[in-house]
Amino acid sequence: MTNDTTNTTTAGPIIAPPGLKGVVVADTELGDVRGLEGFYHYRQYSAPDLARQRTFEDVWHLFLTGTLPSLAERTQFTRETAALRDLPASLLEQLPAIARSENVPLAGLRTALSQLAAIEDMPPTYDADAATIRANTLRLSAVVPVLIAALHRYSVGKTPIAPRPDLATAANYLYMIDGQEPDPDRARAVEQYLILTIDHGFNASTFTARVVTSTGADVGSAIVAALGSLSGPLHGGAPSRALDTLDAIGTPENTEPWVRNAIASGERIMGFGHAVYRTADPRSVLLHEVAESLGGPLVDFAGQVEITVEKVLAELKPGRELHTNVEYWAGVVMELCGLPRTLFTPTFAASRVIGWCAQIMEQARDTAIIRPSARYVGPPPPQPVPDAM
Amino acid sequence: MTNDTTNTTTAGPIIAPPGLKGVVVADTELGDVRGLEGFYHYRQYSAPDLARQRTFEDVWHLFLTGTLPSLAERTQFTRETAALRDLPASLLEQLPAIARSENVPLAGLRTALSQLAAIEDMPPTYDADAATIRANTLRLSAVVPVLIAALHRYSVGKTPIAPRPDLATAANYLYMIDGQEPDPDRARAVEQYLILTIDHGFNASTFTARVVTSTGADVGSAIVAALGSLSGPLHGGAPSRALDTLDAIGTPENTEPWVRNAIASGERIMGFGHAVYRTADPRSVLLHEVAESLGGPLVDFAGQVEITVEKVLAELKPGRELHTNVEYWAGVVMELCGLPRTLFTPTFAASRVIGWCAQIMEQARDTAIIRPSARYVGPPPPQPVPDAM
Repeated sequence: MTNDTTNTTTAGPIIAPPGLKGVVVADTELGDVRGLEGFYHYRQYSAPDLARQRTFEDVWHLFLTGTLPSLAERTQFTRETAALRDLPASLLEQLPAIARSENVPLAGLRTALSQLAAIEDMPPTYDADAATIRANTLRLSAVVPVLIAALHRYSVGKTPIAPRPDLATAANYLYMIDGQEPDPDRARAVEQYLILTIDHGFNASTFTARVVTSTGADVGSAIVAALGSLSGPLHGGAPSRALDTLDAIGTPENTEPWVRNAIASGERIMGFGHAVYRTADPRSVLLHEVAESLGGPLVDFAGQVEITVEKVLAELKPGRELHTNVEYWAGVVMELCGLPRTLFTPTFAASRVIGWCAQIMEQARDTAIIRPSARYVGPPPPQPVPDAM
Repeated sequence: MTNDTTNTTTAGPIIAPPGLKGVVVADTELGDVRGLEGFYHYRQYSAPDLARQRTFEDVWHLFLTGTLPSLAERTQFTRETAALRDLPASLLEQLPAIARSENVPLAGLRTALSQLAAIEDMPPTYDADAATIRANTLRLSAVVPVLIAALHRYSVGKTPIAPRPDLATAANYLYMIDGQEPDPDRARAVEQYLILTIDHGFNASTFTARVVTSTGADVGSAIVAALGSLSGPLHGGAPSRALDTLDAIGTPENTEPWVRNAIASGERIMGFGHAVYRTADPRSVLLHEVAESLGGPLVDFAGQVEITVEKVLAELKPGRELHTNVEYWAGVVMELCGLPRTLFTPTFAASRVIGWCAQIMEQARDTAIIRPSARYVGPPPPQPVPDAM
């Protein structure tokens, strides 16, 4: 919160629009979303350009250091992060119990990360130097895919597969899920999905991480908090619901009546519309291409449904500019890559954790606690407190 | 986020002041803080008045329902909440492993609550009805003191003590910590501390809970997130540091040179100053009275130090109005009541969780996701992405 100017001149409090929409709460060097242009970027690069040309580790390095790595730096950084994947024995012992709970792996991931941060005694960022904060963020980012895969395997009655340090993040993730080294197209498709979803302005999970960090909290607390905001469907929790919608529609001909009925019932069509974009979501555009390159009947069907839904939404909600968001084509890509739907939101977390960590590092350099106000609208105080009778 | 008006007229984005200070982000019926008057209230009642006249369960009921209970309702509600304290066997089995980590009980509490919410399969608030959300909040609030006491006892090599349903929250909490039914003065002192700290405007942890809830997340995710924001010293994490300061000062005569030296070194004096109050903190005022009623040399010493520190701060930081905040006298009261310092922040959580839950219930009735913006200040995009070389 380094901004010390305001373009408002008012004697009273600033009444923010609902959901703080459009309110600038901090300066950042990490990136931005331009909703009217359908453009978003990571530092000075277009995020889709990075997803087309670079590896996940390259972009992770970019977030961490501000620069894209050379080939030698890529090799070094990929090795450094791969070496951080091993889980401590005490956590491994607890995983079966954590995996026995409901709602694995997302809620299980929340518990396991909380426990790992405690086991490794991550200090409050208030007390930590930059090197410690960096190490904590790398460690937690590196284990997220490992924990997801392990919790998933326990939840389906299998045992975890140890990570392979010779595989990069995306390929190793798929390998740990089913024990097969993935074919390169599938690994690259997941890698491109991961790159595209690392960061995206001050979305709810990122903002959560920054609010928690602003108290001087430890990196683990901030990440666990951010992860919790993916448990709802309104941010990150909907890609499987978008696919469920495709299942419910069933056939291309059924699209139009299904959508009209859903809208008439006041339902939200999962996978369409975004808080910021008034254009096609650029993540959806590239993921559509990725899906086309993988091919198959689901891709054709999803393409037909997309056209029809957008047409009907344009008619029924004119001026709203409701297009497919990232979750629609992300769901299709993940389905084509063999990820079970219970892993869709956790996989999103495996990517977004890189962004959270960069945001945490940036927030930790600031000193202002994030503490807004509310407007009290109840009966006026103070009323005398009656004795209990 | 139901406010749909703004007193700003601007074509561009609203640039908020650092930390969103003074920015109204929502309407609330739960209470407010009037920093200039040194006054805060829970619904229509002065919070200190409630702490003087009512029980913890009474005020919990007030937050939950909007009304203070009658004697019959108090009995019923105290019974209802006491019956929610038992931990499931699967979590009890995991507690020793959770307690073996560092930073117990705060980080352990984060892990255990996360696991309990998963075990009990708490649904996203987006999908849940009001009765389910209410039940989830009551359950998690009721077990927080139980988990703190159990984790604490494991961490010092003892086994947990089962909660006693015939004791109210504060007395039961002290009982579970040392196995002795506390004397009424000590139980009432802790109860008054708990009442005074249930809620306090849109502080960082409360705001965290609301941001997470705005995604449609489950109650467990929101509470675990809020808890994380207590791990830093800038919100909730400082009462033990305030006592550490008293230890470091050592004697009344050493107060003035110690404070001058700390200020000259650019250090923050823990226990003094507040983001909102420009007067004495009304919580501190009442907790000072509570401490005086308990009596003893620590109270006299803390009173002498308070006078001297405020005098020196007024001289060295004129116009800043730095007075003792809640953590100063809270630390003294908790020390006098026999709570170990590692439990100070967790005990704060045992109180504040009631406020978080009320705020979660209020936020869950809203539909706008909380998603602010940032101002990008890095090199302008898009730069061409170079190939790795």
